[in-house]
Amino acid sequence: MSLPVHLQSRYLPLGDQRTGRLYGQDVLSVSQFCRDDLEYIFGVAEAMRTMVAHIGTVDLLKGKILANLFYEPSTRTSSSFAAAMERLGGSVIQINEVRYSSVAKGESLPDTIRTLESYADVIVLRHPETGSAAIAAQHGRKPIINAGDGIGEHPTQALLDLFTIREELGTIDGLTVTMLGDLRYGRTVHSLARLLSLYNVRLNYVAPEILRMPAELLEQLNAKGVHQAEYDTLDPVMAETDVLYVTRVQKERFADISAYDAVKGAYVITPETMARFPSRMALMHPLPRVGEIAPEVDSDPRAAYFRQMEFGLYVRMALLAMVLGKA
Amino acid sequence: MSLPVHLQSRYLPLGDQRTGRLYGQDVLSVSQFCRDDLEYIFGVAEAMRTMVAHIGTVDLLKGKILANLFYEPSTRTSSSFAAAMERLGGSVIQINEVRYSSVAKGESLPDTIRTLESYADVIVLRHPETGSAAIAAQHGRKPIINAGDGIGEHPTQALLDLFTIREELGTIDGLTVTMLGDLRYGRTVHSLARLLSLYNVRLNYVAPEILRMPAELLEQLNAKGVHQAEYDTLDPVMAETDVLYVTRVQKERFADISAYDAVKGAYVITPETMARFPSRMALMHPLPRVGEIAPEVDSDPRAAYFRQMEFGLYVRMALLAMVLGKA
Amino acid sequence: MSLPVHLQSRYLPLGDQRTGRLYGQDVLSVSQFCRDDLEYIFGVAEAMRTMVAHIGTVDLLKGKILANLFYEPSTRTSSSFAAAMERLGGSVIQINEVRYSSVAKGESLPDTIRTLESYADVIVLRHPETGSAAIAAQHGRKPIINAGDGIGEHPTQALLDLFTIREELGTIDGLTVTMLGDLRYGRTVHSLARLLSLYNVRLNYVAPEILRMPAELLEQLNAKGVHQAEYDTLDPVMAETDVLYVTRVQKERFADISAYDAVKGAYVITPETMARFPSRMALMHPLPRVGEIAPEVDSDPRAAYFRQMEFGLYVRMALLAMVLGKA
Repeated sequence: MSLPVHLQSRYLPLGDQRTGRLYGQDVLSVSQFCRDDLEYIFGVAEAMRTMVAHIGTVDLLKGKILANLFYEPSTRTSSSFAAAMERLGGSVIQINEVRYSSVAKGESLPDTIRTLESYADVIVLRHPETGSAAIAAQHGRKPIINAGDGIGEHPTQALLDLFTIREELGTIDGLTVTMLGDLRYGRTVHSLARLLSLYNVRLNYVAPEILRMPAELLEQLNAKGVHQAEYDTLDPVMAETDVLYVTRVQKERFADISAYDAVKGAYVITPETMARFPSRMALMHPLPRVGEIAPEVDSDPRAAYFRQMEFGLYVRMALLAMVLGKA
Repeated sequence: MSLPVHLQSRYLPLGDQRTGRLYGQDVLSVSQFCRDDLEYIFGVAEAMRTMVAHIGTVDLLKGKILANLFYEPSTRTSSSFAAAMERLGGSVIQINEVRYSSVAKGESLPDTIRTLESYADVIVLRHPETGSAAIAAQHGRKPIINAGDGIGEHPTQALLDLFTIREELGTIDGLTVTMLGDLRYGRTVHSLARLLSLYNVRLNYVAPEILRMPAELLEQLNAKGVHQAEYDTLDPVMAETDVLYVTRVQKERFADISAYDAVKGAYVITPETMARFPSRMALMHPLPRVGEIAPEVDSDPRAAYFRQMEFGLYVRMALLAMVLGKA
Repeated sequence: MSLPVHLQSRYLPLGDQRTGRLYGQDVLSVSQFCRDDLEYIFGVAEAMRTMVAHIGTVDLLKGKILANLFYEPSTRTSSSFAAAMERLGGSVIQINEVRYSSVAKGESLPDTIRTLESYADVIVLRHPETGSAAIAAQHGRKPIINAGDGIGEHPTQALLDLFTIREELGTIDGLTVTMLGDLRYGRTVHSLARLLSLYNVRLNYVAPEILRMPAELLEQLNAKGVHQAEYDTLDPVMAETDVLYVTRVQKERFADISAYDAVKGAYVITPETMARFPSRMALMHPLPRVGEIAPEVDSDPRAAYFRQMEFGLYVRMALLAMVLGKA
């Protein structure tokens, strides 16, 4: 999803700013970041990782309040932001019950945002409608961080995915990243592919016919010169894969249940599958998983998906510190 | 709502106390405050406003725990109290799910209160039944702050409304306050009118016939010598109005939908309406709004309703600090 | 409930450890504690009681994060753990909505635990299925505290019950403890009886025929040499009772409503009942109560059930501090 036209000028690449990068800004879309921004964010995230490992918490955001506003539930994302704020010494106001309260009484999103920014210093927003984060940012004075707006964007997920690749393999340039599963509806793979297009990478897409990458996205990345290739199975790309990014193939996507049964086995990662991948690579998944990766794979050192969760904490700590001018 | 007889002696006006005003006490009803109390509370609230603007947070209530007990959802009020406690360095235990837990198992309110005060230092209570805050206070040892009990009281709303008038216009004495909309069922306008009766003000009531101020309240304020006048439309009072307090006219209140359609337009504030008010006045609304004030009015400097939310934070900070003996 | 065999070696009695008792360990079952462990925990809990009385809060766990993961609601237990963590200066991530989120999407408990321990330092788990706390502990790296798993264990309840007896009566050895009500399904009385079997006590069980103590538990305690006796009514044991532990007799347990009506009166504690007990004894109840103890009893100095809630705070503070290596 690109930003609405009226907002694009607010989110030009930040490369020219020397200090206070992201300070006072919103985090709405992966398209607002240039490669230099990403490196800056990842540098801060790495400092957060070191800090957590050695001290656990700092008081960088002491006295700051995060409103964690979730119009739809997401334990994982919500907890991750809450922990990120608390590890920086800040406080969290959790708002889950929006369906029962002011919003249920018909209050508009802009009014809710303006109310919450009377109390809070930064707002994390999860909303089922595409574009809602941009609307919130348009009406708010305080930084908004988009934690997923429908089939639109979930930029912090894409940032943590990229950070995970960098931490696991030491670099991003030169890698071959294979994306597996539901590439048609998967918000995370779309955003990650866009971010990866800022680097020198090769992208493989492995999906059933009806769940292939949208043509529009293929064209956009093609125009940028990204090497992309599509496959039906993992076999041809296993040997060259540095990162395997697995997503869930949902039965409900198939009109015909026999079509689902025919393909599902091809998209489950087992120890046998892992045996055919290089000894140095990273197996990723945005979680939750429901059968896409067998639990027996968890003990494989290449299984990066739980570390991926942890890296999400550091990326969110970095973003919170940056938008509040403390990084 | 007046206090139950057995509690009235606990809530005599506090004017004679020199130190620790409100310390260890409950905040149950606007009727417990004399004018001197209000001035004291507003003085503390103003100090909180200055503190938040310059520092953001203090550690005045560090180590204190607020139990935010909401038997019915109210994102706005709940968040405001949580932020107030956190900006004072305290911690919050949020209890929203009472309908699913001990209470659903049939536990009495007094038992729930006594349990929570084993853990917490102060309890904020929102409950659907009138008088429940007084019952809670009767059984509890720790301070109870009433955050709305049914059609009864919502004293902190009335206090923040009054504080808003004072901050916006510099004074309360001598003002003409016009209340608009549903004056029959509106808890907020009833409490505000009672508080305003402690000052030298003129009150205009503009409402459809079936939503007029209750006769009982009119008589009470009349007995106190308050100048009151009732109208069908805003036209006659626009020029003299210093504060316009808008409330929502709910369609459901009308037995006949055509009666609703006939009046609804008269109670919507637009830029055209605002053009006919004095250039110095305050437009207030307790929020959430659902169409009573057009969004185009938001940029009018007289539109005070979002600042009103912010002032609520300061008033609640003041009350928490006072009942815990730290103001 | 005994621990699964594969976990038993992890939970041998801790008596030989000189320092850091419980550090990094899970709290899953009362069966993991020897008497020496209990005395150590109660010593720390007493220190917490003194600290709260004099200071209110310390910064012992500053920077530590508790994930309070409740798959089923329990305001009382959840609030108690949250307050315990906050009184020690730590932070809490509250997760109540598991039925709506990742878990509802089919995520396994081990995956949820591994995700949360990416963010948090300790996990408190309430889950409807017996054995789930042990499963969580098996897959997690961070300490798990069982806050109730189905009809299985609720060890912190049993610990606070025992601590309450100790605080109220100064000792545990030599006491006669009478348990009343639903002894068949009551998780709390089972766990408490097991813990009491580590001391020199006499146990009386007073229950309707269909709600008697399970034969298996009677035999286990008999094998340990505990003096146990069963009764239909309180009359024969009133004079000798030092502790009366009341639980709720649920109407739904009876196939025949007339059978319920026949017994229910015998299990309600009134001031008249209390008049027949010794002047020095403790009346306990895990709460919530729904009619088992008349409110008129609350002012009796022997009514210990609200202090019991408060003692729960200190026991949970002790456990949190210990598993995090700070006690």
